[in-house]
Amino acid sequence: MILVNGIPQTHIEISDRGLQYGDGLFETITIQNGKAIFLQQHIDRLTAACQRLYIPTPDPDTLRAEIKQLCQHTEHAVLKIIITRGSGGRGYRQPDTIQPTRILSLHPFPTYPDSYYQQGIIVRFCDTRLGLNPTLAGMKHLNRLEQVLARAEWNDDSVQEGIMLDINDQVIEGTMSNLFYSKNHQLYTATLTQSGIAGIIRALIMRHESVIEHSYNQAELLEADELFVCNSVIGLWPIQQLANRSFAVGSKTNYLQNWLTQQVLHDG
Amino acid sequence: MILVNGIPQTHIEISDRGLQYGDGLFETITIQNGKAIFLQQHIDRLTAACQRLYIPTPDPDTLRAEIKQLCQHTEHAVLKIIITRGSGGRGYRQPDTIQPTRILSLHPFPTYPDSYYQQGIIVRFCDTRLGLNPTLAGMKHLNRLEQVLARAEWNDDSVQEGIMLDINDQVIEGTMSNLFYSKNHQLYTATLTQSGIAGIIRALIMRHESVIEHSYNQAELLEADELFVCNSVIGLWPIQQLANRSFAVGSKTNYLQNWLTQQVLHDG
Repeated sequence: MILVNGIPQTHIEISDRGLQYGDGLFETITIQNGKAIFLQQHIDRLTAACQRLYIPTPDPDTLRAEIKQLCQHTEHAVLKIIITRGSGGRGYRQPDTIQPTRILSLHPFPTYPDSYYQQGIIVRFCDTRLGLNPTLAGMKHLNRLEQVLARAEWNDDSVQEGIMLDINDQVIEGTMSNLFYSKNHQLYTATLTQSGIAGIIRALIMRHESVIEHSYNQAELLEADELFVCNSVIGLWPIQQLANRSFAVGSKTNYLQNWLTQQVLHDG
Repeated sequence: MILVNGIPQTHIEISDRGLQYGDGLFETITIQNGKAIFLQQHIDRLTAACQRLYIPTPDPDTLRAEIKQLCQHTEHAVLKIIITRGSGGRGYRQPDTIQPTRILSLHPFPTYPDSYYQQGIIVRFCDTRLGLNPTLAGMKHLNRLEQVLARAEWNDDSVQEGIMLDINDQVIEGTMSNLFYSKNHQLYTATLTQSGIAGIIRALIMRHESVIEHSYNQAELLEADELFVCNSVIGLWPIQQLANRSFAVGSKTNYLQNWLTQQVLHDG
């Protein structure tokens, strides 16, 4: 089922600026036993991004009520929330009165083999580069052609994720995940002030552990002791292979995986 | 009226990747006396962009037939064509079989005062910067948050267009138009290999006149003898004021305006 501004629907107006210009943003949330995991964090991020894009923020109580309506009998699923600037005339100029469109849709939870969590995944470097755009960086907005093109680079199911560099050859993130590495017991991740999406799990890890945010290249990444990717649906996956280099699932990754599982249980 | 894959509709599926990711592109075409102006050029650009995005290209004959159906009794209007990668599941990965969505919609032609053509328009510099992204540069794709944010910077109807710089302080284009300047009888325009949209009128001018494509900053622009903007709907507007500097409507601009009018008549 899909709710559009609270009403079950399968379609939206063609004049919606979400379609016309990618003028909006989204959240992807795990539903477990009828509960939206890390919902407060997702609502906070959604609110912050709406403010950056000058889209009126959705009422959190309305969101929570609609999520309950949609998900309360759902065991395991992915909830996607899209907020757009609503319908408008032709042209970039926004309407004088913005009536945002709020779309909540429920999707099957993807089935991942246990090995992704235990032995880790195989990843590749993508050729498609992330552009530089400080105005939009960090937000989960609807302008996602970079990720679409990067994900279209491979069809081979033995590769689970692609790592994207920016146009300056700095490593940023996965096509659908944030990337961390550990070197000499110190965690690192990319600065996301020029490109990339600042994920909820990324933020949770950074609040829990000392992580150095910096700019780094492929060679530095391949020197790491441990690598992992994370997002709100997969949780945390170790990387076992990248560009013909193998990595062991290390203690840092194991520790954070267990810690994250506890956080999910606690939140859920 | 709106045609979606040939069928009159007002809505599209929420699962359409045009909405989900801005995964598509568009064209904006002037309709005059039932004819789409510079249609071949628009179809060529659409086809080239589809190829860059790996979206199956629409059949030109189908497009022409639908445009005829939609526009043959229309005196003056704007036709918008949107092509998306079609519906798909959640996630950036494209479906194994792509069935693009083809949307043709007709909009009222905006009424512009004669003074915009004769005395020119008043423009401003936007604060919102264009990011750098060679993979997407030049295309009229659906990831247009930069233009939306730039156009949201002013509500004052006495300003008709905003000029955008990129993050390196180079002048690129207007929010909805391409920008040219003339200095010592030589035409210049910005290189669009890192950002911007390569417009149809821009291309026509460049095929007709010697134009130097280069990278230039605000100071160089303000030293120009003549400035103008162009796009497929407005045609060519001289700029009479930018950042408190006034410009005369020069002979180069007048010449190109008349030439463009002839081209439209010839095509229409």
